[in-house]
Order: sequence, then structure tokens, then C-alpha cells
Amino acid sequence: MNNFNLHIPTQLYFGKDQHKELSRLIPANSKILLLYGGGSIKHNGIYEQVIGELSSFDVIEFGGIEANPQYTTLSKALEVIKLNEINFLLAVGGGSVIDGTKFLASAALYEGEHPWDILEKGLRTEIGLPFGTVLTLPATGSEMNSGAVISRKETGQKLAMGGPGLFPVFSIADPTVVASLPKRQLANGIVDAFTHVMEQYMTYPTSATLQDRISEGILSTLIEIAPEVMSTPENFELAANFMWCCNMALNGIIQKGVPTDWSIHAIGHEITAAYGIDHARTLAIVLPSMYRYKLEKKELKLAQYGRRVLGLTGDDRKVAEQAIDQTEDFFRSLGIGTKLSDYDVDNASAFPQSCVTSMEKQRTIILGEHKDIRSKDVKSILEAAI
Amino acid sequence: MNNFNLHIPTQLYFGKDQHKELSRLIPANSKILLLYGGGSIKHNGIYEQVIGELSSFDVIEFGGIEANPQYTTLSKALEVIKLNEINFLLAVGGGSVIDGTKFLASAALYEGEHPWDILEKGLRTEIGLPFGTVLTLPATGSEMNSGAVISRKETGQKLAMGGPGLFPVFSIADPTVVASLPKRQLANGIVDAFTHVMEQYMTYPTSATLQDRISEGILSTLIEIAPEVMSTPENFELAANFMWCCNMALNGIIQKGVPTDWSIHAIGHEITAAYGIDHARTLAIVLPSMYRYKLEKKELKLAQYGRRVLGLTGDDRKVAEQAIDQTEDFFRSLGIGTKLSDYDVDNASAFPQSCVTSMEKQRTIILGEHKDIRSKDVKSILEAAI
Repeated sequence: MNNFNLHIPTQLYFGKDQHKELSRLIPANSKILLLYGGGSIKHNGIYEQVIGELSSFDVIEFGGIEANPQYTTLSKALEVIKLNEINFLLAVGGGSVIDGTKFLASAALYEGEHPWDILEKGLRTEIGLPFGTVLTLPATGSEMNSGAVISRKETGQKLAMGGPGLFPVFSIADPTVVASLPKRQLANGIVDAFTHVMEQYMTYPTSATLQDRISEGILSTLIEIAPEVMSTPENFELAANFMWCCNMALNGIIQKGVPTDWSIHAIGHEITAAYGIDHARTLAIVLPSMYRYKLEKKELKLAQYGRRVLGLTGDDRKVAEQAIDQTEDFFRSLGIGTKLSDYDVDNASAFPQSCVTSMEKQRTIILGEHKDIRSKDVKSILEAAI
Repeated sequence: MNNFNLHIPTQLYFGKDQHKELSRLIPANSKILLLYGGGSIKHNGIYEQVIGELSSFDVIEFGGIEANPQYTTLSKALEVIKLNEINFLLAVGGGSVIDGTKFLASAALYEGEHPWDILEKGLRTEIGLPFGTVLTLPATGSEMNSGAVISRKETGQKLAMGGPGLFPVFSIADPTVVASLPKRQLANGIVDAFTHVMEQYMTYPTSATLQDRISEGILSTLIEIAPEVMSTPENFELAANFMWCCNMALNGIIQKGVPTDWSIHAIGHEITAAYGIDHARTLAIVLPSMYRYKLEKKELKLAQYGRRVLGLTGDDRKVAEQAIDQTEDFFRSLGIGTKLSDYDVDNASAFPQSCVTSMEKQRTIILGEHKDIRSKDVKSILEAAI
């Protein structure tokens, strides 16, 4: 097991009606910027719930943060923060709104000329403007970690940022929000959380016996509850387990002491940057192809996953192969395509090369827990995913 | 799933040589009281490691905190704290030293006349003197939670305390310490952590699917690694998994959203208070008897445990019964007796009644996740454990 430092300062308030804690959790006399996305919170009652708790604060609103939050949009929010001397941010939304808010928390205190440098130069944020979140869409785990991914359409970039200054001070996670989500977002959330676990678990070699078991527990739970979450999202108990799985998948616990991969995400981000395909769906496109490509090296871990999570039996190679097939079937059972050609994309056959070219422009391609996935590998993996 | 608030502010530094972080983690200009137990740290190199990092601080030492830390001993340490205007505590030890330090962190700021009231009146500690820990014995999880248990020999009491002010600021957990532990302490640690999980898991009913899976993961890991931890404690990877299991068993994660039991601990504390038997061993005495007594009501959960953790098959009742038997066998395989008569105790046959009388003196006996374990039940459970 590798050395690690575990510190999750975020206070999580999980359960029904936890928004009632808001006024107590935000520092008195805060000047708040309330950030949200496309406006669904104005139709599902969450906006009224939140605003109802903020009557004693000075609140300015900024809506319109899109999926794969855009630098251009966030730059406008940054102006609002500076103009109004905002000192507390409140994100009400899913991973995109929360990630956008993390960028703003960092950029608001950034002293350089171009906040995009935080992403492009990979600057770690030690101190950010304090912020809280009200989670409206379980998926990314962003409500309990210090990472964010920001996009810039003009340059075709989608880059990650983070640092200890970007943990939410608090997060409100009320599973009743799941009831009103469209099936597309439910399926995306399940696949997103599932792949987050896989990026931290499907590595080799590792002696982290307990982390393996915890990861397997999250994967088993997601597979067990997924069909019912899709058919009856109004079932609170299912929704609660779904929301808790998404949190545990990326709150930092299962990454401690183990090597992590994240190559599926790195390639998936390029697909989103190129075609605008939902983040989770890009992961479903890359994952099966990635694991088939790395079958030889990941065979033992894939076999462990196949036996413990999927209940498969047989020799290692057979179980490993079946495990990949069944994982792909699982994604498809949620209505999520696992090939590029399942989506409305132009000139898919040219994408593997153009993706590699785009990635190389930013930096040398060195991916995977052993840093052994290079340009030619990415091209092959994508060719098998067309 | 029940509503919950998850907040673990402790910074955990886990792995080899993490004591090197000490001087950075303790606030500059701290006046430190270094607390330890029977002096084993002076023989295994840990004392030198710690002192070597504290050269820039003003340090006073207080050794001699015993297993089941005693109020009388701690009262002396409290005098040292007040006399020397100590403003930071550093516990170097196992659960007893850390628990004792938590009492001191609370008592140092307590304004009442009798610090024992913190325990006897169940006063919650909102703010304590800041403290860190260097863990030398994995077992209780005290390094990552805000609870403590303190004993008072004169009155035969062993009482729990806690509150958000009692999280360690940091904890150093270096698995290399496991190599030098006596087998008795290794076995105690395994049984202690195992029972901590059971107290939070073996409850009914619960819809917390993921928490169940995580708990099962810890139990499976402990069973898997226990024989090798006992025979080769110098194996770092095994030691690391053991230490991490103990932490995860009581850092708060698996208790979130579920009913918890803790009746085994409540009764076990009485056995320690009466006979001085090691804490973990009292749990091993009570657990099998408790679950046999509650077989009817816990049958489904016991069967789930039997199937998922122990790999048993058959109908619920049969699996549940076998699961209890195998758990008892597991404890015995570690050299831990599971009956009162396995220990050197006087007049064991009178203990069930005297235990109930002693417990009733403190408060009405109402135990278990359904608060359905009363005086007569405790007596029956103990009679079956003689």
C-alpha cells in the first residue's frame, strides 16, 4: 500500500430536508453569489427551498452554467464576483455547476493576469474563496472533493484543476432530488460513478486489500440498484444509495494507498471536447475498448472483478474477457451507447488520429497507472471504439 | 437510509516514516504535553522518532497511561497541563493513550468543578484543547474519531464521552509499528476492529446497501489477513491493511445512515470494569452469546453476513447459526477465549446478576438498535457466556 494523506474537510449533510441547515452553515454577513445551471432548479422546487433559507443574506444570482462548464461563461461570473465583492459562493446544481464554482473559488483569489493559466499551467489551489454546494444531480462526487474539470470551446480544451483550497465548506445532498431527474441523467450518473471507481480499482499490481473490497462494494451496489433507480427514481431508499455511491466513488477514500489510472477520463474528455457528447457516455465508449486493449496486463484484476462483483467463474482469461463484455452490456442496458458510432458524430473514422494530434498539442501523451499508454495506444483504443 | 452528517476533520498521515510530518503539523510555539503509556515506545524506537521531530518545541512528558485509562492517572496529567500552560497534546500510543488524551483535551477547557462530570453527565465536548496522535497499536480507530472511553477503578465505572471538539487535528499511522507488537495485542486489535464493524452492521432492518457492502469488505479483509498478520506482523502490506481496517471500522463512514447497536460494548465494558479483562476479549465473550440470544430478530442480517462474508450456503436459519459459530471459531483461532470461564475470574456464575445490578446503578438498561435489550436480557446473555 502506498503512503497517503487523507483529509476531507467538507461537512456533508445527507438526507431529506437538509437544506434547512443552509442558513446556519453560511457565515453571517456573507455576500453570496448563487450559481446554477440551465434553470431546472426553478421548476423542481429546489430554487425556492434554497432562497427560502437565504433571507438573512445579501444574494446575487448567476445562472446558465452549462454542462462541461465553459471558461467564457465562468469569466462573466468572475466579473460579477469582483464587481460585487462576493465573499461566499453557493453552487446549486450537479457536477458542472460545482466544478464551475470551484474554478471561480480559485480564480477569485488568483493574482495572475489570465485565470485560464490555473488550468493550462496546472496550478494547484491552496486557498480559494469559501463555497458550499446543494447537490441536485448525483454523479461526479464533486460535492465532496477538491477537483474540477473546465472546458474552453474556442480552443477545444477540457482540463482538470484542483488543490486543498477547493473542498466545499459544506455540501447538502438530499436524495429526493433524484425523483425529478430525466432518465438520461440517471444513466449518466450511474456510469460516471461506476467508471470513477474503475479508474481507481482496475489497476495492477496492488496490495490494498481493503480498498479493493470497498471499491467492489460500490460497484456491486451500483449494479444491484441501477435497474430500479432507472425505473423508480422516486424510491427514496434507492435514490439515497445511488447518491451515496456517487459520493463514495470520488470522495477520496478509495484512491488512498493505491495507484490510479484515469486514462479513460483523459481520452473521454477529448471526445466531449470534439463532439459535445455527455461526459459519462464518453467513458462508456472508452472503458470497454481500453480494458480489451490492456487485457494482458490487467487480466488478474479483471478476473478478480469478474468473480467478486459479477459472480463469474472459470479461468482468469475467460473471466476477464467476460467481465469486460458484461460491463459493456451493463452500460448498454442503461441506454448508453458504448461505441462512437452509437452517437451522431461526423467522420468518426478520422477521430482516433485527430484526437491524438489534439492531445499531443497540449502535452506528451503518457497515461495509465504505469504511464505506459502513449499516442499509438490511444489511437488503437479509439479505433476499436468506433 | 437515515439522515446523517459526515465530517471527519482529522488529517490522517498513513504510511512509512510519516512521523517526519510532525514538526510541520504542530502549530509553531506550541507548548506540548507528550502523553504515552507503559513505556513500550522507549524500546521500539518510536520515542526517539517523535522526540527527534520536536526539537523546536517546548515539550513536557507524561507517561504511564494504562490500558483502560484511569481517571486518577489522567487527573495527574491534567494538573501538569494547567501548571505548565500546555496548549497542545500529543498522544503517542494506542487507543488507551489516545482516549486518555481526548479526556484531557476536554477537561483542560472544562469550567466545572469535577471533570468526571463530563463522563457521568454525558457532557458533549464542543471545543477541546487541540491534539495530535502517533498511533502505535491499530485497534480502536480512536485516531480518527471523536469518542473516548475512560475508567474509574474506585467506582467500577467505565464510561464513554465524545463530541466534535475531540477529533485529533492529525494522526500519524505508520504500519511498521505492527511488527513489534505482541501476539496478544495483535489478536485484540483484530477482534476489536471486527466487533466495531459488527456493532454498526449487524442491525435490522436497514436499506443502506452500500454501507452493508463496505462493512462486509472490512470484515472479509480482517478474516482474510488475520492468520498472516498473527504469524508475520513484520509483513508491511498485511500490517497496512490491518491498520487501515481498524481505522475504517470506526472513523464514522460505516455508521452513517444506519442504526447502530453497541450493546456488546456496553456489556463488555462492565466485564473489564469487574475483572480487568482486555477490552477486545470482553467483546469476544459477549458477541456470540448476544447474537444467539437475538437470533430470531437478526436472522436475516446474520444470514446475509454468513453468505457474503463467510461464503456459507443454505437456508437463512442454518446460515445464521453457522455464521455465529464460525465467528466464535475465528476469535478462538486468534487465541482469544469466548467464554468468561476461559479467563481467570472469581465466582463467574454470580457475575450476570452483579453486572446487571452494577449497570442499573448507573442508569436503566436500554440497549440495542431497537432499545429492546433490558436487564433480564443482559442477564440471560451473560449466563450463556459463562
